[in-house]
Amino acid sequence: MTAELVTFGETMLRLNPPSGTRLETASTLEFRTAGAESNVAIAAAHLGTSSVWLSKLPDSPLGRRVTNEVRQHGVEPRIAWDDGGRQGSYYIEQGSAPRPTTVIYDRADAAITTARPAELDREAIRNAAVFYTSGITPALSSTLAETTADILATAQAAGTTTAFDLNYRSKLWSTTEARRASESLFADIDILVAAERDVHNVLDRHGEARTLAEGLVSDFDFRTVIITCGEDGALAIHDGTTYEQPAFETDTVDAIGTGDSFVGGYLARHIAGDSVSDALSYAAATAALKRTIEGDLAVVTANEVEQVLENEGSGIAR
Amino acid sequence: MTAELVTFGETMLRLNPPSGTRLETASTLEFRTAGAESNVAIAAAHLGTSSVWLSKLPDSPLGRRVTNEVRQHGVEPRIAWDDGGRQGSYYIEQGSAPRPTTVIYDRADAAITTARPAELDREAIRNAAVFYTSGITPALSSTLAETTADILATAQAAGTTTAFDLNYRSKLWSTTEARRASESLFADIDILVAAERDVHNVLDRHGEARTLAEGLVSDFDFRTVIITCGEDGALAIHDGTTYEQPAFETDTVDAIGTGDSFVGGYLARHIAGDSVSDALSYAAATAALKRTIEGDLAVVTANEVEQVLENEGSGIAR
Amino acid sequence: MTAELVTFGETMLRLNPPSGTRLETASTLEFRTAGAESNVAIAAAHLGTSSVWLSKLPDSPLGRRVTNEVRQHGVEPRIAWDDGGRQGSYYIEQGSAPRPTTVIYDRADAAITTARPAELDREAIRNAAVFYTSGITPALSSTLAETTADILATAQAAGTTTAFDLNYRSKLWSTTEARRASESLFADIDILVAAERDVHNVLDRHGEARTLAEGLVSDFDFRTVIITCGEDGALAIHDGTTYEQPAFETDTVDAIGTGDSFVGGYLARHIAGDSVSDALSYAAATAALKRTIEGDLAVVTANEVEQVLENEGSGIAR
Amino acid sequence: MTAELVTFGETMLRLNPPSGTRLETASTLEFRTAGAESNVAIAAAHLGTSSVWLSKLPDSPLGRRVTNEVRQHGVEPRIAWDDGGRQGSYYIEQGSAPRPTTVIYDRADAAITTARPAELDREAIRNAAVFYTSGITPALSSTLAETTADILATAQAAGTTTAFDLNYRSKLWSTTEARRASESLFADIDILVAAERDVHNVLDRHGEARTLAEGLVSDFDFRTVIITCGEDGALAIHDGTTYEQPAFETDTVDAIGTGDSFVGGYLARHIAGDSVSDALSYAAATAALKRTIEGDLAVVTANEVEQVLENEGSGIAR
Amino acid sequence: MTAELVTFGETMLRLNPPSGTRLETASTLEFRTAGAESNVAIAAAHLGTSSVWLSKLPDSPLGRRVTNEVRQHGVEPRIAWDDGGRQGSYYIEQGSAPRPTTVIYDRADAAITTARPAELDREAIRNAAVFYTSGITPALSSTLAETTADILATAQAAGTTTAFDLNYRSKLWSTTEARRASESLFADIDILVAAERDVHNVLDRHGEARTLAEGLVSDFDFRTVIITCGEDGALAIHDGTTYEQPAFETDTVDAIGTGDSFVGGYLARHIAGDSVSDALSYAAATAALKRTIEGDLAVVTANEVEQVLENEGSGIAR
Amino acid sequence: MTAELVTFGETMLRLNPPSGTRLETASTLEFRTAGAESNVAIAAAHLGTSSVWLSKLPDSPLGRRVTNEVRQHGVEPRIAWDDGGRQGSYYIEQGSAPRPTTVIYDRADAAITTARPAELDREAIRNAAVFYTSGITPALSSTLAETTADILATAQAAGTTTAFDLNYRSKLWSTTEARRASESLFADIDILVAAERDVHNVLDRHGEARTLAEGLVSDFDFRTVIITCGEDGALAIHDGTTYEQPAFETDTVDAIGTGDSFVGGYLARHIAGDSVSDALSYAAATAALKRTIEGDLAVVTANEVEQVLENEGSGIAR
Repeated sequence: MTAELVTFGETMLRLNPPSGTRLETASTLEFRTAGAESNVAIAAAHLGTSSVWLSKLPDSPLGRRVTNEVRQHGVEPRIAWDDGGRQGSYYIEQGSAPRPTTVIYDRADAAITTARPAELDREAIRNAAVFYTSGITPALSSTLAETTADILATAQAAGTTTAFDLNYRSKLWSTTEARRASESLFADIDILVAAERDVHNVLDRHGEARTLAEGLVSDFDFRTVIITCGEDGALAIHDGTTYEQPAFETDTVDAIGTGDSFVGGYLARHIAGDSVSDALSYAAATAALKRTIEGDLAVVTANEVEQVLENEGSGIAR
Repeated sequence: MTAELVTFGETMLRLNPPSGTRLETASTLEFRTAGAESNVAIAAAHLGTSSVWLSKLPDSPLGRRVTNEVRQHGVEPRIAWDDGGRQGSYYIEQGSAPRPTTVIYDRADAAITTARPAELDREAIRNAAVFYTSGITPALSSTLAETTADILATAQAAGTTTAFDLNYRSKLWSTTEARRASESLFADIDILVAAERDVHNVLDRHGEARTLAEGLVSDFDFRTVIITCGEDGALAIHDGTTYEQPAFETDTVDAIGTGDSFVGGYLARHIAGDSVSDALSYAAATAALKRTIEGDLAVVTANEVEQVLENEGSGIAR
Repeated sequence: MTAELVTFGETMLRLNPPSGTRLETASTLEFRTAGAESNVAIAAAHLGTSSVWLSKLPDSPLGRRVTNEVRQHGVEPRIAWDDGGRQGSYYIEQGSAPRPTTVIYDRADAAITTARPAELDREAIRNAAVFYTSGITPALSSTLAETTADILATAQAAGTTTAFDLNYRSKLWSTTEARRASESLFADIDILVAAERDVHNVLDRHGEARTLAEGLVSDFDFRTVIITCGEDGALAIHDGTTYEQPAFETDTVDAIGTGDSFVGGYLARHIAGDSVSDALSYAAATAALKRTIEGDLAVVTANEVEQVLENEGSGIAR
Repeated sequence: MTAELVTFGETMLRLNPPSGTRLETASTLEFRTAGAESNVAIAAAHLGTSSVWLSKLPDSPLGRRVTNEVRQHGVEPRIAWDDGGRQGSYYIEQGSAPRPTTVIYDRADAAITTARPAELDREAIRNAAVFYTSGITPALSSTLAETTADILATAQAAGTTTAFDLNYRSKLWSTTEARRASESLFADIDILVAAERDVHNVLDRHGEARTLAEGLVSDFDFRTVIITCGEDGALAIHDGTTYEQPAFETDTVDAIGTGDSFVGGYLARHIAGDSVSDALSYAAATAALKRTIEGDLAVVTANEVEQVLENEGSGIAR
Repeated sequence: MTAELVTFGETMLRLNPPSGTRLETASTLEFRTAGAESNVAIAAAHLGTSSVWLSKLPDSPLGRRVTNEVRQHGVEPRIAWDDGGRQGSYYIEQGSAPRPTTVIYDRADAAITTARPAELDREAIRNAAVFYTSGITPALSSTLAETTADILATAQAAGTTTAFDLNYRSKLWSTTEARRASESLFADIDILVAAERDVHNVLDRHGEARTLAEGLVSDFDFRTVIITCGEDGALAIHDGTTYEQPAFETDTVDAIGTGDSFVGGYLARHIAGDSVSDALSYAAATAALKRTIEGDLAVVTANEVEQVLENEGSGIAR
Repeated sequence: MTAELVTFGETMLRLNPPSGTRLETASTLEFRTAGAESNVAIAAAHLGTSSVWLSKLPDSPLGRRVTNEVRQHGVEPRIAWDDGGRQGSYYIEQGSAPRPTTVIYDRADAAITTARPAELDREAIRNAAVFYTSGITPALSSTLAETTADILATAQAAGTTTAFDLNYRSKLWSTTEARRASESLFADIDILVAAERDVHNVLDRHGEARTLAEGLVSDFDFRTVIITCGEDGALAIHDGTTYEQPAFETDTVDAIGTGDSFVGGYLARHIAGDSVSDALSYAAATAALKRTIEGDLAVVTANEVEQVLENEGSGIAR
């Protein structure tokens, strides 16, 4: 099957105590799965994009726990099953001001850290409209850094549009390492998405969003650069034109996964042929809906996104 | 037993996933019962009114699930048990801006849709101080439309005060159908309660609340008309006098059932002999308390309502 | 994609209170999905068979709840989405001697009851190794009875092996109706599976399992007949040879879905080219594992089934 | 309203951790209500007997928690509401051999301990077919011992049949105290129910069940004596005739409340005019069903009891 | 072992329904333990102070439930085990405006009400840096009022700093009784903590916080007086100097226990040798974090408190 | 503080889905902690032995989750806090015949794997009556193998009795590695406990329990050898005398941790000065009670163990 969107990256088990309970005293945990690249694929799949997620997982109930959930959301997992590696996981404790949300990664030596290009379905990448991965992937191991470079080049060579979210994780590497690794990939990237603070901290570029985007386009010749600014919305430059997209106001239940849902919404509409402007507003609405749902995943329909865009999303329908 | 308040209508099973979880991925549901007319009777019963609820239910664990819960709240169910009909149910997913609360009705062919006057305890209706039903009842079937007309006339003839909430449900019928059916009942109704937007959409009357109420009194000769305006409170005209009642500010947990609790609070105090003004403020306080409780039901005491009215309802008593 | 196994039938929402709690007093329900034909496809998929499930569902969160769960288990749903029909559901209360397990169906007017052949992916049926449906499907509506006959004939004509489980449901039709409808389909069925008591009650045939199987083969010329006898195991006649398969002893957690898991296990190994004898023992082991799992579904691996067959399935591995 | 059965006694909050979890490490508790006399009334009400339960409770959410649950099961509570007393409660930890089930009573100074006859609805007692209380009631306070004697005499004088379960509780009083108090009530009791071991330990009578029953009839002139022997069933002497009733085999979920359900089943059929023999078998079947349900209460229908008597209570009906 | 902080008082079982559910309809309760003096010790222990809590408890699973939880949080319980007394408990229903949070105490005749000095580890008190109890303790019984006086005197005589929170509980005694009892203890108290409203209501002193504190220092010669003013922060006078501490803004999950956490934070830093100013800000940050956690207890680390003080407590760290 | 019992080893997070649910489809997990050496210390502490558990843990909420639970059960953790290592965890899925219980370890690179003697409280070991560790500890890393040897020698030299459970884990090392490592420690071990099957598989010794025990005493000069044989009880040789102890029959809820509870019970009574015979029967009763409790831990009192020994452990006490 040819999928419109192919993503590659790690998906972890997500373990969290009930809201308001601390990990160190919890007696039950909610058990989900999450990872930037499967999150993006899942958001896009719920919006109608045929999506495949590539990864490497341990051949165990824990690895199957991951693929079961990814499949549930309409994404086809194509997995290199590993006899030995670990299944990455993370613990998350939802905060409440002034207590921050805390994430504890337990992902060292995950099966994916040994993934090489030959283990992945490169044919799917070559046939896709868009291939997506994030800055988390090369951060996980030097093998993965090489693999990421290889498959981005493969995608580019095949004419597949490549999208990349900088997605800096301070618990995985330093900003210096992240900058060097990311910039080495930029030549093979068509669409760069980056949080404003990551551009400041990792790429060491400063100024307001527009300045950051212009500099990145100018220096690396991206087709599209999207700078996300949290509650201040997003700004894109595409083929020389600048687009500004405000964020929707939300009554947030769970903020984790908002950025991935934004990307998933954008790519879904990009693939469907929407204009940058339409895709950006769609992305913002998808992200807003995600914030109302527990877990990392944008379990939303295209119809619901459109209701948000039409400002009908309130009250009770009965 | 003679009950002060008798209501008639459908009560459904209410199934909802935990807050923040979508129906399409839920693995557990909270299981309650709810219906406009039993909600009203339950609110009144908690406030001290002897209440009977009339309905028709399937003779099954699901039908008993309904009567068990209604009885728990102090209302006596008098049921025409049906060997064949369905138990109506609805699924509800609590929203969070910009995601709306969603209701999925699954009530077609419910046992009640075949209920005829002879199956109901008309003696109870004749002996009651107030009989209440809502615009949902005639919407459920043509048989029920006839039955509703018949028992409103029965109540009127017996000198029982009749109360009716317009309660438009777009998933049951069109505004045109609702208007025709409702207006045909108005001659037998003493107290009309209607949400401002329903007066606009269903009765095709426009203007501010006072104008709407005056028009309805003038055209249909209601003893009392109450227009509810959500956060803008309520306005009543009774025997030519206008009353305005602001809404109490709340930290809302679950908004479903607020309107029914308002009506239940009003009728409880109407039956107890309060003035319209006192009954309206009692109704508003009952509705405010309901908003702090999960589920459709106003599980509140008269004492708690009075504390809200005396503005003592905050802090921690210990 | 060509699937090895294609099944067609209704899948319902399954709602059950916690074990030991009665429906009429329950305040939470477990929320799953189940249906004979998707159960069979899911068992086979977990055992490595590529599987597609055909159905018709309402285009609603409830319909998506079903496809999400089916996909989770590795089966591809191909759905005729309906704007109007209901989503069938059933309530189940697990018994404990002397209290029987109780099932309350709420499946009247489900979307699938209007499914016609043109709405189904007949190409998938034609390309499959095996097509499976059960006696529940024609029981749901006269339209479905016609559709079932049509697609069994389609499968036969294309050379696809057809498998059918008699699966009598007394709450759907009489034994007389079931007999007439089932027998009219037998000419297009290669593999008949039937519970011993259904052969007695529905087909009005009597005697021990071997006699029943021989009579069915003789009268209807089935390639394979499998009679299941609960704790007494199963008996098959295939191409004139008789096979007996004892049941495995289990410490049962949830018996619902055992029969479907048996069929799923059998078809998985039939498709893989196993002998009837091997497929039967695999089926019995799959069914035994299912009994240890809450819900209708055989969430098991081929490796686990093999451990049961090798009698290694006990103790703790660590 | 005239009720057929009136009972009087304490109903407590019942708090238990999940099965397999110890109280001293539990973080959640299941929250129910239970008491011998309301249990009996509830069992009878579920079987069709109109039932009233008399008690005295604190006027608080905890007292209302009790009446809400009693009402849910179809029993009408008539309560002397107390401004000051406590709400009795008990903690229960389900055992598993060799760990016994443990009960911790926290019922000292409960509101009911001050209940005097004038606070109770003696008219209901006089109009009832049967009045029931148990040996727990006089054990709770000396005031209650007097009240129990008074209302049993009231019932007798009015021609109401009086039923009494010895129900010895070692945590409330000594066997010597219990014997003296119980025997002083026997003159006003028509139907005595007693567990075999209580007859041994409290009444200091020995021998097999028949001997015990004969001695009690002979010494105290009871109309009916029923000796319950757990898994060995029950034996009754009524008007000189002896009846033996075996117990039904069960797969027990929760044994608490079995004895009360037996009494409730017996009285329901006694009131309905059944023979002693029929009432005893009905009682045993009701008790057997109770053992399959979590909590103290026999949430069963007459139809289910009859299925057990007809030995149809197994398998799955669908 | 010598502990830096020793506290003495009652710890109860805390029973609460899920948020949004009323006690009178709840079917599950969360089960925790809480008491002002163990709360203070637990907050201090989590912040690094070696802490001992003295009490008297029934020798039962309920008493052990309390010590297990106290020990879990790093406080050593030294208990006089009682064969007979009750385990105090309280029910709490979280409010939501306009519905107040409701507390129902069930603590009469708790084992601790008979505690005499000889049953307590006075050596631990003498060796501690700080001894703490609150105005709840003398309110529980006249024996405890004597014991409280005795051990405060013991502490003073040994040079242990004594700290006391006025902590008025209207459900335990009148303001007049509380005033008389508290003032009789003041001579033996070094550090007085009091909520502004308690100073008004109990001590009958009026004016703003500074006035109240100055008056108390002047009349009773306290070394330190701290007046807490809820969202308006706190004010302290120590050795003639006045300190003002604003409260941190919070997104509150559970407000119960905030005051105890403030005291625990203050004493932890007082014992560590911090200045009054530093200890106050630490106390305010500890209290702010507590408000984000379900239950009475400040399950926080020193590092987290410092993050709040450095204003880093927001966002997601990953 | 001097503790009577000191143990050293890894304690993991224990994550399990609800019974009857598979890991690969679970959405919630129960969250506990467990490890052979803390399990032993906890069983002994609940039975009255002062106990310290030594380990090395990551300085994180996960590491604190472990110490909180260990402390809750009355054991004092003395921890080398690590800035970098992982917190070991394991997933467990309870089986039901024929499905085995499955354990998935995720303990590679746990903080403890780098623990050296200097990081541990050797003074506590020297002052203890008994020091205990198991064959799991040296299996975790070569550093731990050295550390285990070092501290066993330290204990021996100080006159502390050393106890060791062979505890073979096939997922950690081969039987050959285990044999070599274990036998090299035997010279410093006084009390050896070993499951019969581990003696067969790891030590390559064959025959019945008595033969195994005699051979081990003869070859390695242990003071005491205890061979555990599951449902067949245990056999000990001590100072030349043989003792046989049958197992108690149980209605098992959770078998994990039974062996550790046996050892904890034995050591508690050994330290208290009991005879080998008495300690063995106490151990067997402790293990039997553990089997009735969810989780690895023997949350039992000495009184409960004695009830089992006196055969009073059945029925309901109330």
